[in-house]
Amino acid sequence: MEENIKKIKDSIRAIPDFPKKGILFRDITTALKNSETLKLTVDELCEQFKDEKIDYIAGIESRGFIYGMPLAYKMNCGFIPVRKPNKLPAETISQEYELEYGTDKIEIHKDALKSTDRVLIVDDLLATGGTAAAAVKLISRVAKPVGIAFVIELEELEGRKKLPEDIKVVSVVKY
Amino acid sequence: MEENIKKIKDSIRAIPDFPKKGILFRDITTALKNSETLKLTVDELCEQFKDEKIDYIAGIESRGFIYGMPLAYKMNCGFIPVRKPNKLPAETISQEYELEYGTDKIEIHKDALKSTDRVLIVDDLLATGGTAAAAVKLISRVAKPVGIAFVIELEELEGRKKLPEDIKVVSVVKY
Repeated sequence: MEENIKKIKDSIRAIPDFPKKGILFRDITTALKNSETLKLTVDELCEQFKDEKIDYIAGIESRGFIYGMPLAYKMNCGFIPVRKPNKLPAETISQEYELEYGTDKIEIHKDALKSTDRVLIVDDLLATGGTAAAAVKLISRVAKPVGIAFVIELEELEGRKKLPEDIKVVSVVKY
Repeated sequence: MEENIKKIKDSIRAIPDFPKKGILFRDITTALKNSETLKLTVDELCEQFKDEKIDYIAGIESRGFIYGMPLAYKMNCGFIPVRKPNKLPAETISQEYELEYGTDKIEIHKDALKSTDRVLIVDDLLATGGTAAAAVKLISRVAKPVGIAFVIELEELEGRKKLPEDIKVVSVVKY
């Protein structure tokens, strides 16, 4: 298992100064290009939640779609896209969150979930935790978020502290 | 098989006047929410390409990510994201295409593919075919596009005519 995590970590490329100067961007496209690390990453996320009862995977646009969908397929769950504003065609509910400068919003369809539904939220990266916390809040308003899964966690940014304690938080690779 | 296609078709919701007045939007979120139709759709796309040798799935942002990734997982392929401008962190090549008003661009990483790689392009919807044709052109510059798969085809818009004849074009549900 440790060996698989190392393979996944080695397949993620670091790109300096993206999207802006001073940021070291963890690029998952190299982990996706390799069919072995793609499969190992999805399987590791499934393994971590195999004992939980989960009805839906909620993937956060757009890299959460990338990892969320194979999880939904493999775990026999439905998939709920958590999208940026004005992308979903039917009536939505939305949750605002703060950015470094200003605010942003994420949305789901109002009829996407019901109160008894157990939901696993998926995104590629846990950084400061702003988007993740907003996704948990948004899902909590209509259903039961039971966990949140990331491929990468930037531990020094302490995003985990923004997430409720009664939710299982998993990340595959830590920096 | 016909029965499965009918199930998938019935699970896609029609939303009038989205994103603008006069357009009947085919909403796949209801097909994704249902774990059975999610699985049937992915399996049908895999089935259609099971006799082709495919190295990579190229998913077009962002609904092409949704269907492309479970295909890559199931077919043991790598996944290449085809993204809107300025989203990919490393050096890219891009392809312009025309919109109703103005132009847009899609990009892949310059080092994502090599000339012998056989690629299946995936998107949710074939409408006028502008984005699809641009994706085929873009992939052709660096590798071999062998097919393109859609969940939905709007036949009256004749998008198929924009695609090269030597590429296998598949859609699951037709309107």
